[in-house]
Amino acid sequence: MKTISKKMLGVTLASAVALGSFGFSQFSPQTEAKNEGKKVKPEEAKNVIMMVMDGTSSSATTLARWYKGAPLHMDQLVAGGVTTYSAESAITDSAPAATAMATGNKSNSGYVGVLPSLVNTPGVDPIKEENQFRPVANVLEGAQKTGRSTGIVSTSEVQHATPAGFSAHHHDRNNFDVIGEQQVYQNMDVILGGGKDSLSPGQASKSRKDGEDLMNVINNRGYDFVETRDELMNSKSDKIWGSFSNTALAYDLDRAKTRPEEPTVADMTGKAISTLSKNKDGFFLFVEGSKPDWAAHSNDTIGIISDVLAFDEAVGKALEFAKKDGNTMVIAVSDHGNSGISIGNQATTKGYDKTPVSAYIDPLKKADMTVEGALSKLNSDLSNKEEVAKLYGLDNLSSEEKAKLDAAKDSKAIGTALVQMLANRANIGFTTGGHTGEDMFLYSYGPQRPVGFFDNTDLADHMAKSMGVNLEKLTNELFSEATNVFKGASIRTDVTDPTNPVLVVTKGDKTATLPVNKDVMIVNGKEYKLPGVVVQSQKGEFYVPTEAGKIFKKKK
Amino acid sequence: MKTISKKMLGVTLASAVALGSFGFSQFSPQTEAKNEGKKVKPEEAKNVIMMVMDGTSSSATTLARWYKGAPLHMDQLVAGGVTTYSAESAITDSAPAATAMATGNKSNSGYVGVLPSLVNTPGVDPIKEENQFRPVANVLEGAQKTGRSTGIVSTSEVQHATPAGFSAHHHDRNNFDVIGEQQVYQNMDVILGGGKDSLSPGQASKSRKDGEDLMNVINNRGYDFVETRDELMNSKSDKIWGSFSNTALAYDLDRAKTRPEEPTVADMTGKAISTLSKNKDGFFLFVEGSKPDWAAHSNDTIGIISDVLAFDEAVGKALEFAKKDGNTMVIAVSDHGNSGISIGNQATTKGYDKTPVSAYIDPLKKADMTVEGALSKLNSDLSNKEEVAKLYGLDNLSSEEKAKLDAAKDSKAIGTALVQMLANRANIGFTTGGHTGEDMFLYSYGPQRPVGFFDNTDLADHMAKSMGVNLEKLTNELFSEATNVFKGASIRTDVTDPTNPVLVVTKGDKTATLPVNKDVMIVNGKEYKLPGVVVQSQKGEFYVPTEAGKIFKKKK
Repeated sequence: MKTISKKMLGVTLASAVALGSFGFSQFSPQTEAKNEGKKVKPEEAKNVIMMVMDGTSSSATTLARWYKGAPLHMDQLVAGGVTTYSAESAITDSAPAATAMATGNKSNSGYVGVLPSLVNTPGVDPIKEENQFRPVANVLEGAQKTGRSTGIVSTSEVQHATPAGFSAHHHDRNNFDVIGEQQVYQNMDVILGGGKDSLSPGQASKSRKDGEDLMNVINNRGYDFVETRDELMNSKSDKIWGSFSNTALAYDLDRAKTRPEEPTVADMTGKAISTLSKNKDGFFLFVEGSKPDWAAHSNDTIGIISDVLAFDEAVGKALEFAKKDGNTMVIAVSDHGNSGISIGNQATTKGYDKTPVSAYIDPLKKADMTVEGALSKLNSDLSNKEEVAKLYGLDNLSSEEKAKLDAAKDSKAIGTALVQMLANRANIGFTTGGHTGEDMFLYSYGPQRPVGFFDNTDLADHMAKSMGVNLEKLTNELFSEATNVFKGASIRTDVTDPTNPVLVVTKGDKTATLPVNKDVMIVNGKEYKLPGVVVQSQKGEFYVPTEAGKIFKKKK
Repeated sequence: MKTISKKMLGVTLASAVALGSFGFSQFSPQTEAKNEGKKVKPEEAKNVIMMVMDGTSSSATTLARWYKGAPLHMDQLVAGGVTTYSAESAITDSAPAATAMATGNKSNSGYVGVLPSLVNTPGVDPIKEENQFRPVANVLEGAQKTGRSTGIVSTSEVQHATPAGFSAHHHDRNNFDVIGEQQVYQNMDVILGGGKDSLSPGQASKSRKDGEDLMNVINNRGYDFVETRDELMNSKSDKIWGSFSNTALAYDLDRAKTRPEEPTVADMTGKAISTLSKNKDGFFLFVEGSKPDWAAHSNDTIGIISDVLAFDEAVGKALEFAKKDGNTMVIAVSDHGNSGISIGNQATTKGYDKTPVSAYIDPLKKADMTVEGALSKLNSDLSNKEEVAKLYGLDNLSSEEKAKLDAAKDSKAIGTALVQMLANRANIGFTTGGHTGEDMFLYSYGPQRPVGFFDNTDLADHMAKSMGVNLEKLTNELFSEATNVFKGASIRTDVTDPTNPVLVVTKGDKTATLPVNKDVMIVNGKEYKLPGVVVQSQKGEFYVPTEAGKIFKKKK
């Protein structure tokens, strides 16, 4: 097995790594790649599966293991550590975290797949003004470039920050219109998750405002569109778009009681793998267990455990395939800590050393649903608070607990009371409702797997290298300034429809139009497919594939 | 390089590993051992350095890195994860944590180097009644058995729980009389740290109650006894006992101002290595950065950072040697979490994603001393509270902060107010004044280094194997029931001096006396040296080296 030299690694990563280079990570021969006679090179991994459990601190993983009462699949993969900070903060937002791991670049809060406009973190290279908001290629686009199939899986809306970081380029993570449209034109093979609202116009808060019905594109581009677990599992298509919820999927613990038709993240991962692995040239798959983060924001211990364990089952699926295949690298990681959760709290300041596992786990085992699930059973007149508390494992309420519940006068306040009461019973501590800044564990398996301590941006470079991709070169190929690509032509932006700007290029009698967020270019009325989507930056600048220039030059 | 098979690893560890076996860890060839032509076998590491930063959660390490503004030495060594729970609790006490890592056995709160009497953790093997409190061999004793030199270093009293776990056998970590005496008779080559009080009788709270002056033994056994950094650094002896404080050493940040004559943990580590490495057969060194844990108990962010960075410098020393030597395995780990410290707290629940590193670090940089250091400057009439606050970095007190300080009416309350005010200013969260239960990062380097996910007991087995030691066999050699060793003889305990019980063995005209906690046996007035110390368990049972039986049989 070829070992990529430390020096090479150091040089490539130096610009992106804060606090100097950590350059001590290694490529471990846990398994040898079996690439003989295949198209992929011996130093590459044929398939790469990148898995993120969002917002999962170390305590959450340990607690989930105790709750399960058996080792996690992830335990087999522990391989090091990862930093998480962004270009502007010690504690990252999910969008720049995903951007770091997908593109190799630190970015700002809310930015997916584009460079930062503000850098104040010690050790992070400053950003030149002309590069602010510039879209940068991600590992999924890199995989496509090499002929690999690609897919994304999430339990949130697929347009949410983390999957967006691996499949879109925009400075505002909340703009599901832009992100959703780019994804539909991103030529991925498998897209599974929530977020159906953002595919079509409608009345929901996340329905499309730009009037475009992406369902037409999904159908025209040959996806098998599925909406339930059964439809997903029965699909024989090589291209599947699964949209199982208008917004996010249910917590794993709640699914059977609230939305039994939804697939688990393990179901989605397994199906994505079996579909993508039909490609003899390999695949790249991104998987997110999205909701440990949401539960952590709510300090809902049960929701955290529920979806860490569900994510771990998905890791199990990936590992099962990787072990059989022998040529698949699996990476799993949390993108940042959340909630400051700890096993132990003020009640265990004295006595922690003699408090058995059962004192933490038994109270948690009583819960039948997460706090989101339990609150979904709350009557609108709040008349069944105690019933809801019981669903959340809080039986035999003390007078103090009853008083706390009585004092809660709306669903949100009841939720806050419930999570605090259960955390007290289970000796679990929290410090915040936000993310936290500690290093995360790195999990990896297979040929070329990373072992050691990495900046989160290193993971992108590591995956790219393992697939034979140069992300910097690819950025230039996919996202060049339109003014450079169409040198000598006249360029303007048509904003007749302000939600759908179009780049218009004219030279002599030739006119090309390039609608934003699509991989399409129309030259004198004839449509051409581009190798990537057209992106308009926050500054209004258009970035297009260099291929567009060649097409424009050649075509009449 | 020989790879110890997974199966072998699994079988050896199965009994000690809770929740079934994690048996997926590997031996990584980060560097190849250079054992050609040496006494140690090719699959062994000549030298093993085991380093523990006590009570250091992941957030503490990340925070220390930001404070330093540069990578930690430990960053080069990140290699996996370690569990920490004890036989009776999800959150361990330092004593059973040390016992686990030193002997490969889970134990109970307060127990050093002996088996538990209570097991209630799921997956941990139950303890047979006859094995309760039984002393078990540790890796330091294993190293001695193979002819390696040995040493311990700590910034606490050397009799404190963690170094005690690697060098003594007793059910009560607070009994410095017993632990200190065993250590003096343990035949180590280098002992550096605090705890001078416990070497001699006197009036201090930790002075010896048993009337024994261990200073005589230290002198008789040829140690160069040193009490300052200069004396330490100038010593040319192969055997050094350094006792630099009556109790614990100062925090690193405070030393220059309070006790400039004390060595740093890096000084002690460097000197221990240069002394021990004179032995061509190799060495085992245990190093503890003791006080990150104490600072965490106090929620003193500054104390934590101070002594994590000091520990990291010691890791740097070890790494420097290991890199040059090529045949040294270094392991570093925290024995458990503490304080639930997080980067981020209630103040960052909103806004964490845009809060720069400086918002955390700048307030901390203002502190000149830890809270312990600052409080040491407090007037007895508490008249200089604000001056003390300023030493701790709290300048320009707000009216709210002033009120909080005014309300604190003794040194302890002032300390609590100070740590809370600084944590608030620096956006640091805490959940508890006790330990916490999350998995810890594993750091390792060199031949046979562990990579992956380990139970804390696995580390003992891993080190033992890497030194060619079988701990189970060694336990039988060093700690057999006296009734078995002296079969056919009459056995009684002489408690004329209740603090110094003596085992008396008689057969015919032969009488042997074996004083507890010493490696000495007197047969008919003649003194013999035993290969290990005589231990009396909590149940009163005596455990002695089997060699004692052979000596008794042979001698007249």
